[in-house]
Amino acid sequence: MERAARPDATTIAELGESAVLARILPRLAPGDSTLLGAGDDSAVVAAPDGRFVVTTDMLVHGPDFRLAWSTPFELGWKAAATNLTDVAAMGARPTALVVAIAAPPAMSVAVLEGIADGLREGLARLAPGAGVVGGDLSASSVLTIAVTAFGDLEGRVPVLRSGARIGDVVAHAGARGTAARGLALLFAEGVDDSGEPDAARARDVRARHPELVQAQVAPEPPVAAGIVAALAGATSMIDVSDGLARDARRVAEASGVGIDFEGRTLGPDLRVALAGAEDHGLLATFPRGSRVPEPFEAVGRVVDEPGQVLVDGERAGSDGWDPYAGWDGRSG
Amino acid sequence: MERAARPDATTIAELGESAVLARILPRLAPGDSTLLGAGDDSAVVAAPDGRFVVTTDMLVHGPDFRLAWSTPFELGWKAAATNLTDVAAMGARPTALVVAIAAPPAMSVAVLEGIADGLREGLARLAPGAGVVGGDLSASSVLTIAVTAFGDLEGRVPVLRSGARIGDVVAHAGARGTAARGLALLFAEGVDDSGEPDAARARDVRARHPELVQAQVAPEPPVAAGIVAALAGATSMIDVSDGLARDARRVAEASGVGIDFEGRTLGPDLRVALAGAEDHGLLATFPRGSRVPEPFEAVGRVVDEPGQVLVDGERAGSDGWDPYAGWDGRSG
Repeated sequence: MERAARPDATTIAELGESAVLARILPRLAPGDSTLLGAGDDSAVVAAPDGRFVVTTDMLVHGPDFRLAWSTPFELGWKAAATNLTDVAAMGARPTALVVAIAAPPAMSVAVLEGIADGLREGLARLAPGAGVVGGDLSASSVLTIAVTAFGDLEGRVPVLRSGARIGDVVAHAGARGTAARGLALLFAEGVDDSGEPDAARARDVRARHPELVQAQVAPEPPVAAGIVAALAGATSMIDVSDGLARDARRVAEASGVGIDFEGRTLGPDLRVALAGAEDHGLLATFPRGSRVPEPFEAVGRVVDEPGQVLVDGERAGSDGWDPYAGWDGRSG
Repeated sequence: MERAARPDATTIAELGESAVLARILPRLAPGDSTLLGAGDDSAVVAAPDGRFVVTTDMLVHGPDFRLAWSTPFELGWKAAATNLTDVAAMGARPTALVVAIAAPPAMSVAVLEGIADGLREGLARLAPGAGVVGGDLSASSVLTIAVTAFGDLEGRVPVLRSGARIGDVVAHAGARGTAARGLALLFAEGVDDSGEPDAARARDVRARHPELVQAQVAPEPPVAAGIVAALAGATSMIDVSDGLARDARRVAEASGVGIDFEGRTLGPDLRVALAGAEDHGLLATFPRGSRVPEPFEAVGRVVDEPGQVLVDGERAGSDGWDPYAGWDGRSG
């Protein structure tokens, strides 16, 4: 994965919008579903299914990321990855993204180039064939990235949060708590003496814990597993963005059932596995007796406890698995 | 048009994300093309044509709008209107929007409610049947609204910027310079003695020039005219967001032709008509000899001067029609 932005100090304001776009657009691959790409009033995307799935997510410097901790490349990668997982969680194949970026005029153009490179490589790795089909560039004092992602259901019924049935197998694909452990390290050790994010100290943290930091700043969610789950008959599915416990509760509430995790399947640190946000794994349910498809692993059972999340049959408190609320990337 | 936000001082932070969404979502109409609305990982939108058009645009407090000049309702309306016009400019029927908003935690929830109301009413007026199908809510020190809009081509070929042919009739639908005149008034008289936008003085400007200010803060672009143009055989079309002269130049460059405006058709103030940004009218070309459909009006002819914009046969300088560059809403 390319990490370093080019050492180009030209600012966005110096170059101007048209010239900036001329440097960014060639870095983006068009994608197999792009019928008309950037350059007109709108783009045109293929939707062979006659429907398309769509999700949008905005990343804001401060609450959602820090340039002291993430390279521009990683920002672009993560912006793609988080949206692609929301498409995957419907059982759809990602087809395209549009990206709106607001950036400070005095920011180096290299930051935008790095974001574009990360978007391209994130798409290539996580959703081959999907491309960036359009975008917008604005000025703001706060670097802000809004991605909208599209997917094709290929004739399938979308997999909703509301379809879990009592007796279903609960299964999970992806990391469990790794991204949160990386973020905890950055908050604890990637800051200066006043607590502000610090690039040099963050580099030290990376050197000691490369996998944990990587999972936070450039996650590799199991995007392809979304279609696998749909084809295997998944009854429900959700992108685990806020932690297994919180997102399992969403499935439990939408489906009117309970989710009972088998504690031993979740690894040595149960609390982190359940509470850790931003792993962007997929939590799905499959009919009783069905074989859980790889890369999913069975982690529990759907039970008759409407709206509840349990571990080994005991109820998890509504905030009992939330020790990270103060630093899970949602607060400044 | 409803102008006043409800006098509710509850902040976004006090209410929390879930409760804020519970207050916003009921204000948004689902739309005829929404197969699955907000509440799951992604929404599902109908695309009966087998393709969809998509455009995205980010509005940032400061460069793109001021809360001292626009009500939240007007912000929502304008965010819808500007994106709908980009869909219309392809000859497509708008079907849906997704909206990502980043707002300061200390901001009143009433601001978000007003934006939602403006989105709903803007859609109802400008694109009946289109709805808000999903969104995202984030925290930022700068109020930021990113809208992504979708449309259906209903089997038609998209109308591009590149299709104008020598001899075609140039036609325009919508306002010519009105939004820019409103913005000029706000910059001149809607500010305090230090030049900062001022709500009380802006109200005085509105009282004296309601139509000009309205055209700036809540434009009513001719969205339905996009389909009309496509059905009438338009060879090219563009949303006039940056002024007739600049956007005509985009068509001229993309098509390899010249656009020659007939000066007398553009109203008494030619400079404002050509340079004024943000009217969001539609500029289209129709085959020689065809009848220009209402609400379009013939305003010129496509000529053999590649990449050039002319008025009555004389070349307009590349920045000759740009007296408003400093205050056209793109600078802070």
